[in-house]
Amino acid sequence: MLQADAMKKAWIRSFGDPDVIELIETGTPVPKPGEVLVRATSIGMNRSDLDCRRGIYPVQPAAPCGIGHEAAGVVVEGAGDSIFKAGDRVGTLPGSSFVKLHDYGRTAEYFTTNADWLVKTPDSVSDAEAGAIWVNYLTAYGALIDVGRLQPGEVIVIAAAPGATGLAAIQFAKLAGAQVIATTRSAHKCERLLAAGADFTVNTSTEDYEARVLELTAGRGADFIFDPIGGPFVARHLDAVAQKGRVLLYGVLTYPEFCSFDPDVLINKHITLRGYNVDDPFVIDRAALAKAVEYITSGLNEDRLRLIIDSRFLLDEVVEAHRYAESDRQFGKILINP
Amino acid sequence: MLQADAMKKAWIRSFGDPDVIELIETGTPVPKPGEVLVRATSIGMNRSDLDCRRGIYPVQPAAPCGIGHEAAGVVVEGAGDSIFKAGDRVGTLPGSSFVKLHDYGRTAEYFTTNADWLVKTPDSVSDAEAGAIWVNYLTAYGALIDVGRLQPGEVIVIAAAPGATGLAAIQFAKLAGAQVIATTRSAHKCERLLAAGADFTVNTSTEDYEARVLELTAGRGADFIFDPIGGPFVARHLDAVAQKGRVLLYGVLTYPEFCSFDPDVLINKHITLRGYNVDDPFVIDRAALAKAVEYITSGLNEDRLRLIIDSRFLLDEVVEAHRYAESDRQFGKILINP
Repeated sequence: MLQADAMKKAWIRSFGDPDVIELIETGTPVPKPGEVLVRATSIGMNRSDLDCRRGIYPVQPAAPCGIGHEAAGVVVEGAGDSIFKAGDRVGTLPGSSFVKLHDYGRTAEYFTTNADWLVKTPDSVSDAEAGAIWVNYLTAYGALIDVGRLQPGEVIVIAAAPGATGLAAIQFAKLAGAQVIATTRSAHKCERLLAAGADFTVNTSTEDYEARVLELTAGRGADFIFDPIGGPFVARHLDAVAQKGRVLLYGVLTYPEFCSFDPDVLINKHITLRGYNVDDPFVIDRAALAKAVEYITSGLNEDRLRLIIDSRFLLDEVVEAHRYAESDRQFGKILINP
Repeated sequence: MLQADAMKKAWIRSFGDPDVIELIETGTPVPKPGEVLVRATSIGMNRSDLDCRRGIYPVQPAAPCGIGHEAAGVVVEGAGDSIFKAGDRVGTLPGSSFVKLHDYGRTAEYFTTNADWLVKTPDSVSDAEAGAIWVNYLTAYGALIDVGRLQPGEVIVIAAAPGATGLAAIQFAKLAGAQVIATTRSAHKCERLLAAGADFTVNTSTEDYEARVLELTAGRGADFIFDPIGGPFVARHLDAVAQKGRVLLYGVLTYPEFCSFDPDVLINKHITLRGYNVDDPFVIDRAALAKAVEYITSGLNEDRLRLIIDSRFLLDEVVEAHRYAESDRQFGKILINP
């Protein structure tokens, strides 16, 4: 048996700043019937981890608790009737509805999960980087393809694009034949966004966002806006979007700000403002999920999609990883390698 | 020739309260090529008339100007190649995009319009009531059927239901097999809403709207909310709507209030908030328009649909008609009969 008797795990006694996280020693979890035990090789950090640590995540476990829901690794012990066998390389599927509260806590050396919530890691992706795939790529795919139905020739604004989901969205948008306007608050990230596939960038710290989008679209506005910011940006998106355009809001970087907008703009432009998260297309519709997983797997294996890793931390550096993730310096995925 | 040389017409020199409207004598309009001259028998009053008179309508003519865009009557002089002949009973089609600014001014004894923007009055509808059809029924049909795709068994909230569009929406919703929750601020209108086809009513002056909708739907929320109010009601609708529900905003009775909402609610319930007006499905898609006109015409002729007229004023009483329309006492359509 590869299974260790004890392992390290990130632990939170009360919510707050990064230094509320401590590493504890605890027993390696024992899989229940139908569950798989996985040795983590790559833990994906997501915005939800920061929100969870602060105690503001909509699906919030009670403290004390573990943290983290995205991880990939190697199967130690498969479930009896599972398709997964010891040695298989696997990653967790996202979705707060199927990541039940007790499944938080994957910032750890080992985790257990129901076999239904695991998927095989694409051959082209290393053990160390395998935690960078499913949350971001499924979120972006579901938004742009399943819910948003992005069409060839459409113009999409990808807001706060240097995040891992924004970068995945750029890749899907280009594969769909759309034109991409990527936004960021950092001048030095503009060039990297162009290198990552964006056709245009808008630095919202120094440029007039709405005016620039209208200029880039000959006054028409963007067909689609994919936004994790919320707050005052919602009203700005309504100004920047085209007649009959759609705005997909998938995050609230401006938490706890509310969004305020002029209803006449929404009405007269026939705008669709849609709330979205990865649960949306993929929790009930397993066929849609399977199709997305296959698209992403083959895209990574055949080099149409390309993981962009910002940085990797050790599990011992988990506090530093959280602090870094809040610094707004990242471009791509932050991983923890146990 | 039936054409008179002079006619009475409502006129506004500067925007404001109802008494800014005066009746002037002016020449009967002369149809341009492709236009039809119509003697008005029934002028439909709409919220847009009040907003236009106040100078706050999004498609606002400059003063001095006429007022009103919905009217029905009898063709005096058809266009050369038009399908309309003298004596035909016709009504105007709505839509601010095809009712160009110079076509305001139909609160008058005669009007001209392009033949493309006219439709035959259903046989079952009298000359006096023919102004009560197209704005309200096309608005409701387009919202519920074309854009909203209301399904049998769904629960729809029709907000501010005693308006003529709300009452038309109740009729379409019942024909579509939906359950209707109608809202009003007036206790005495609740009974009339039930008589008009609503399954349930909520008096938003005295009842907790969100709690009542959740109670009526066993905690699930409404599938669809059709709202002309806006302002603070948008956030309340997000609380009252079901997971994956849709909220169609088609008016701003709370003008100039903005709408403010909690983005987490929109995201976690995957809500679609859609701005809508009658231009939306029907300006470009003439096939959809023709289908809606046929559905409404046969519905009225075969008694599946039923015009609900609140009151009728003479053209001389136009100021009084505007004042009454702002009193929030109406239940159904207000007409002016020249």
